[in-house]
Amino acid sequence: MMYHHYSLQAFTVKVFLKMGCPDDQAQQAAKVLIDADLKGIDSHGIARLPGYVRLWEKDRLTADPKIEVVHETPSTAVIDGDGGLGLVVAPEAMKVAIGKAGTAGTGWVSVRNSNHYGTAGYHAMMAVEKDMIGISMTNASPLVAPTFSSERLLGTNPMAVAIPALSQPPFLADFATTTVANGKLEVMKRKGQPIPQGWAQDNEGNPSTDASCVEQGGALVPLGGTREFGSHKGYCLGSIVDIFSAVFSGANYGPWVPPFVSFLEPGSNPVGKGIGHFFGAMRIDAFRPAEEFKSEMDRWITRFRSSKPVQGEEQVLIPGDPERTTYKIRLIEGIPLLPPVIKSFEVLAEKFHLEAPEAIK
Amino acid sequence: MMYHHYSLQAFTVKVFLKMGCPDDQAQQAAKVLIDADLKGIDSHGIARLPGYVRLWEKDRLTADPKIEVVHETPSTAVIDGDGGLGLVVAPEAMKVAIGKAGTAGTGWVSVRNSNHYGTAGYHAMMAVEKDMIGISMTNASPLVAPTFSSERLLGTNPMAVAIPALSQPPFLADFATTTVANGKLEVMKRKGQPIPQGWAQDNEGNPSTDASCVEQGGALVPLGGTREFGSHKGYCLGSIVDIFSAVFSGANYGPWVPPFVSFLEPGSNPVGKGIGHFFGAMRIDAFRPAEEFKSEMDRWITRFRSSKPVQGEEQVLIPGDPERTTYKIRLIEGIPLLPPVIKSFEVLAEKFHLEAPEAIK
Repeated sequence: MMYHHYSLQAFTVKVFLKMGCPDDQAQQAAKVLIDADLKGIDSHGIARLPGYVRLWEKDRLTADPKIEVVHETPSTAVIDGDGGLGLVVAPEAMKVAIGKAGTAGTGWVSVRNSNHYGTAGYHAMMAVEKDMIGISMTNASPLVAPTFSSERLLGTNPMAVAIPALSQPPFLADFATTTVANGKLEVMKRKGQPIPQGWAQDNEGNPSTDASCVEQGGALVPLGGTREFGSHKGYCLGSIVDIFSAVFSGANYGPWVPPFVSFLEPGSNPVGKGIGHFFGAMRIDAFRPAEEFKSEMDRWITRFRSSKPVQGEEQVLIPGDPERTTYKIRLIEGIPLLPPVIKSFEVLAEKFHLEAPEAIK
Repeated sequence: MMYHHYSLQAFTVKVFLKMGCPDDQAQQAAKVLIDADLKGIDSHGIARLPGYVRLWEKDRLTADPKIEVVHETPSTAVIDGDGGLGLVVAPEAMKVAIGKAGTAGTGWVSVRNSNHYGTAGYHAMMAVEKDMIGISMTNASPLVAPTFSSERLLGTNPMAVAIPALSQPPFLADFATTTVANGKLEVMKRKGQPIPQGWAQDNEGNPSTDASCVEQGGALVPLGGTREFGSHKGYCLGSIVDIFSAVFSGANYGPWVPPFVSFLEPGSNPVGKGIGHFFGAMRIDAFRPAEEFKSEMDRWITRFRSSKPVQGEEQVLIPGDPERTTYKIRLIEGIPLLPPVIKSFEVLAEKFHLEAPEAIK
């Protein structure tokens, strides 16, 4: 079933309002989720709305947080998210980073006491419209085993970097620091197919082709897959995201990061508060005139896109291209929702005395 | 044959002095190279000394550069390396980043008109002794094909992040953004063995198991190896390093980066000056008290190191562990040099009327 993005946006805003979110925060949170759906990143879109509601029902989410800068220098800040929605805390933190970049050239903000913040890319992109490079990363609950480990110690810990161009669209890299996201295993499981060796491991740490292996106590593996193909580099990346997001800010890190799902309880010995994020903004003209930089980016992008592709592929892509294509289509044709997601919205609608969103006829 | 590090250091300094480097710069350049050999990163150590000499002989290297800050804000700077040794330009740039972090909380420096800078990790580590996190990256001559490309458009573009701890040694990630470094292919070629599928591709872009495929016009591939295992993420990383290092600073980027080897001429249509680097320094106490942060890093490191290893592996390692082990051994037992490297030093000694370094009896 297909839905107009504005009807999903309206419904999502209403649900957040019912939870007690202030109007501007409900709008912001819904915008972050719908942006993911429009880009085709369905795993991080409004399908997660019931998950946020369940966390709130368990008192693990502050609907009306006091987001505070607790420490700062000319180019840095630490923010306490007061247990609020990451969807709201993250854009606030990114605004602080952008503000600092305005005066100091760059701004860097580490955040504690937050929750799941949607896609990393949304927040990084906020800098681009100000002629800045945007950086965004977050830690997440442990699903990933470092190289040589049979234990899960890291989250999929994504990072995003957004870079403006002149006549070309921005460069937007946004990726988990694992071989694949957990959602890919779920897709293969639904299809009843094995996963390629190198995506995940069982609970003893052996490479597994069973799409259920992570559910059964196994783990995702860092980008690179195995030591032979550089998984220690993916392990480095996931660790850097963890340390910048949480050790800088005083959030939980590594295996102590609380789970997003409400049916798993947070650990009883936290090492910090909530989950952590890290944001950066670098003003282009703190390095060279913005027009000059953006025009070189046009040349960079054009050269890479015009590279001779390997047989069977149409074109070399620029980071952000696939999501831009999906965005254009879904803005007009609507966003597809799976039956379980639609059902979960009907349950939410009943709970909060709302009308469920209507599908496009 | 084994050599004491101080005899190799002394010889290297003399060679740089003969090239016309000022004394302090010759010392600094030699230190960066020997540090790589002590850590076991032989591909980036003094084996490259004859390569630097050949570049200088071809007038592609300034022995006595005027390294200049050409633009700055409170937290940023752009530096022109005047075609100097990257081994000298990079530490100067890192000092500027560290200085800016002292006042603004963080410092970020993009460098143009430089040359090969040795290991990324050396420069990142300079920040650690000041209780800062250090970041270092550089672009390099094109050997890597982006995902779906049959052309080489990126270098192995390494990045390093160094993070201090309290009683534990620092976290030091230092890695190329490809599956493997080119040196690994050379080792397999010498052994007459095929390379694993996923390390490189032939000149049509097909996966290759031929250890000579890159020499024959093929390419290394981004970390991840293939699209199915996330090579688009490695492609993103290599691109980010390229853009921060060169588009920010006005150096050559992508396929325009000049080759390190003197027998290949730089392109006739450069888009910038020399190669580019990017450095960052973040003062720990710009986020939270340094002792507090470093004590949490101790807990992070101890927890990861005590993780249950997979069968057949002794321990989960912390980034930097393997190099630290080699360093301790080589500091005492000496640095092994291969016969072709020894021979090349004898040639250098004759050219400059020096005594070649003596092996340990």
